[in-house]
Amino acid sequence: MKHRRTKLSQNRLLNMSQQAVNGVSHRGKVLTLDSMNPNVKRVEYAVRGPIVQRAVQIEKELKEGVKKPFTEVIKANIGDAHAMGQKPITFLRQVLALCSYPELLEDNMFPEDAKKRARRILESCGGHSIGAYSASQGIECIRQDVARYIERRDGGIPSSPDNIYLSTGASDAIVTMLKLLVCGEGRSRTGVMISIPQYPLYSAALADLGAVQISYYLDEDKCWSLDVAELRRALNAARQHCNPRVLCIINPGNPTGQVQSRQCIEDVIRFAKEEHLFLMADEVYQDNVYAEGCKFHSFKKVLFEMGPEYSSTVEMASFHSTSKCYMGECGFRGGYMEVINMDPEVKAQLTKLVSVRLCPPVPGQALLDLVVNPPQPDEPSYTTFMKERTAVLAALAEKARLTEETFNTVPGITCNPVQGAMYTFPRITLPQKAIDKAKEEGQVPDMYYCMRLLEEEGICLVPGSGFGQREGTFHFRMTILPPTEKLKVVLQKIREFHLRFTQEFS
Amino acid sequence: MKHRRTKLSQNRLLNMSQQAVNGVSHRGKVLTLDSMNPNVKRVEYAVRGPIVQRAVQIEKELKEGVKKPFTEVIKANIGDAHAMGQKPITFLRQVLALCSYPELLEDNMFPEDAKKRARRILESCGGHSIGAYSASQGIECIRQDVARYIERRDGGIPSSPDNIYLSTGASDAIVTMLKLLVCGEGRSRTGVMISIPQYPLYSAALADLGAVQISYYLDEDKCWSLDVAELRRALNAARQHCNPRVLCIINPGNPTGQVQSRQCIEDVIRFAKEEHLFLMADEVYQDNVYAEGCKFHSFKKVLFEMGPEYSSTVEMASFHSTSKCYMGECGFRGGYMEVINMDPEVKAQLTKLVSVRLCPPVPGQALLDLVVNPPQPDEPSYTTFMKERTAVLAALAEKARLTEETFNTVPGITCNPVQGAMYTFPRITLPQKAIDKAKEEGQVPDMYYCMRLLEEEGICLVPGSGFGQREGTFHFRMTILPPTEKLKVVLQKIREFHLRFTQEFS
Repeated sequence: MKHRRTKLSQNRLLNMSQQAVNGVSHRGKVLTLDSMNPNVKRVEYAVRGPIVQRAVQIEKELKEGVKKPFTEVIKANIGDAHAMGQKPITFLRQVLALCSYPELLEDNMFPEDAKKRARRILESCGGHSIGAYSASQGIECIRQDVARYIERRDGGIPSSPDNIYLSTGASDAIVTMLKLLVCGEGRSRTGVMISIPQYPLYSAALADLGAVQISYYLDEDKCWSLDVAELRRALNAARQHCNPRVLCIINPGNPTGQVQSRQCIEDVIRFAKEEHLFLMADEVYQDNVYAEGCKFHSFKKVLFEMGPEYSSTVEMASFHSTSKCYMGECGFRGGYMEVINMDPEVKAQLTKLVSVRLCPPVPGQALLDLVVNPPQPDEPSYTTFMKERTAVLAALAEKARLTEETFNTVPGITCNPVQGAMYTFPRITLPQKAIDKAKEEGQVPDMYYCMRLLEEEGICLVPGSGFGQREGTFHFRMTILPPTEKLKVVLQKIREFHLRFTQEFS
Repeated sequence: MKHRRTKLSQNRLLNMSQQAVNGVSHRGKVLTLDSMNPNVKRVEYAVRGPIVQRAVQIEKELKEGVKKPFTEVIKANIGDAHAMGQKPITFLRQVLALCSYPELLEDNMFPEDAKKRARRILESCGGHSIGAYSASQGIECIRQDVARYIERRDGGIPSSPDNIYLSTGASDAIVTMLKLLVCGEGRSRTGVMISIPQYPLYSAALADLGAVQISYYLDEDKCWSLDVAELRRALNAARQHCNPRVLCIINPGNPTGQVQSRQCIEDVIRFAKEEHLFLMADEVYQDNVYAEGCKFHSFKKVLFEMGPEYSSTVEMASFHSTSKCYMGECGFRGGYMEVINMDPEVKAQLTKLVSVRLCPPVPGQALLDLVVNPPQPDEPSYTTFMKERTAVLAALAEKARLTEETFNTVPGITCNPVQGAMYTFPRITLPQKAIDKAKEEGQVPDMYYCMRLLEEEGICLVPGSGFGQREGTFHFRMTILPPTEKLKVVLQKIREFHLRFTQEFS
């Protein structure tokens, strides 16, 4: 008995010392800031960062009757068209309703072409239901429609449904593609070139994956254009400490709104080939081009026009989404990527990887099908569809112009033309005293500026620091999505705030 | 001039030698099997693995008129209810159609309670459109409904919407939670305990994240029950080479169909507390319990009934989905997780992390809202809803019984009762000669068995090796989802095949 007790005590002691070693003697949480995934801690995503959290809080305060110098918060921080009052395109939603509740196919209230599309989608679903899982790569007939859409867009250059992967918004496909590409440790770790300013999905995904971000700067003085010399500078510098393998381009630009020239795309492709880089072309704003003389050129089309030396070698993925363009259906999380010249063994790995998440949301897939296969001139929904589509794009073009013009009348704000996409990224001159004040408050200066704007005018923008900017310069990103009359008010309020703010600190 | 040429040549030489160093002198692809993310290569997901790819191919061959010993492929490999002919629940789809095309709210064909739900969801969407992004954590009023659902389910134990994160199916939330938990290198690398057999999302996510899989075995002889002694064995062994921090439980079990007793859940919770483990409770089959005497007990309820010593300390996440239960709406990718006792700083990190992907698909969120907030007895849709729901669950219970009974009459097949979930995981005895033959063909024996079954009978199952099984034992997973009459045929065909196969190799 004594022996047994001793043994127990020994065990207990052993256990206690083991616990001390493991640091669990004073049991805290299993999962703390100190013990969580360090890569996740490094992730930042300004588009929904602290300023948006404060905006949501202010909205609640307004609801609770707290007095503010404004009556509503205008969230111009995110490209969320419907939230800004843009109406859904009728045809898209009719087909989605039919797919959701096929009993409506018997009803006379829907046009025949909407019914036809819905029947075709349903027939390609398991059990004729959008509630069934689809193939992990996406529904085959939808991938066929995407391929045909790309062929039409690119003047007949062939596209294969086998190279199309439907996704949960473009973000999903971008992250998946980056994940495939990241490997190595230390100096061999994969480096990924991204523009500065950038869309922070990229920096967030790279932090999460532990990849090396290689920043190349867009030229603000030349309308945010991309210069291959700057790509080369960034690449050479990065070769000292990582293995650069990927070049990401956003065209039309987010947050910068520039539209790349055909020549520039050719230069970039040539650079990618020379430097043995995998190209990722984020082309989700391909239908959002407004400026005169600007035209969207797909990377794929330019690649193929450069001849077989390029079109048969340069590896590329291009991304598209249902969230932007004229439809703005962000909530459905639809999208696709096309991969070009991808090693067949890697493609098999990609297909395997996406199968783990089973499939992209089927309603989003259905929506994508309608975007790439819209009503045709001989179909009953064509006129309404074209009217709605044109109205959205024309309003955006008008708002792009209005935004640029207004900002450029404000002393201390300079703004490049919004050639495409949905954002303006104006540069703001901040007085030194404001910069000092921000530092006192422990904020970066443009965050301080945006927070003040939010508190005083109820307008929610994203500070330029969330996208990256040249040291010592300050910007903000604002969407051009509010309805024209509201946008005018927003621009006027920012103008007044900026003048007041500048005066306060001079 | 001569000088310049020399300089050029030098540069070129330098460049060439640099290329040789970088291994790009004989330029292959940027992205190859050798140069891709090695973690992705280690990912396996048998539920949509090679056997399913072959099944899809066979379907195409049948369409092209290739003669086979069967006329259709029956895919019993995946829990995809609608694909197996289960009809969507009317109420759910009516509300989704109304949300998709709100003009239908003016129509008289929909019941008032469906309209009421749709209006409430739309009012909580930006711009009253499901095409707007939602909050990244999910629409607030839906999270409130989820919290109330959990409170009703758990007899009033409080649930806060702040602890609810809506997700893109349960898979998304499970992977996100694992991602937060993984850190450290070498012997300090996070170890995650998962059952064997397991649902291969877990092993796939762990491979992707580079975490250490710690396998604990369920006891097939005791109806796949979980024994804490086995948990302890696995944990102690793992402590030699990693840092075990997480315990994953699937209840009701996938692929094994067992339903955990309350006592067992208590033991597991006690074990998790003692061993300082974060608990992940995969409870997506919580409404799929069929066996007499079995009842679903949520981990959260048991945790809180164990008193504050447990309920205020044990960290936990529980997962649910719209893909299973009576609704089987896989394609919508709806789901949620509830986190309990999570460090507030970590929760802020989680909120930040999910914001990068913007939001879960809004149609899936809307669907989830209906699942947690179904028609009430005083509402017009109640009777039909209950009739449909009960019919699905009753049919599943009947098919669970039928499957177990039939398999147990086949010599060489033994099958535990399907107490819950949607699968059976019978053990198959394979003759040594069949095992040898499989090895000759370079296949694991149960893959060989399942491939033969597919080729000869057109039935697609998943080999047990895809889920893990004790060395030397063989199984397959089959869903019980085919309609009863078809299920009878499937069971009969498997029976005949098994006898023929056994005879061939004896």
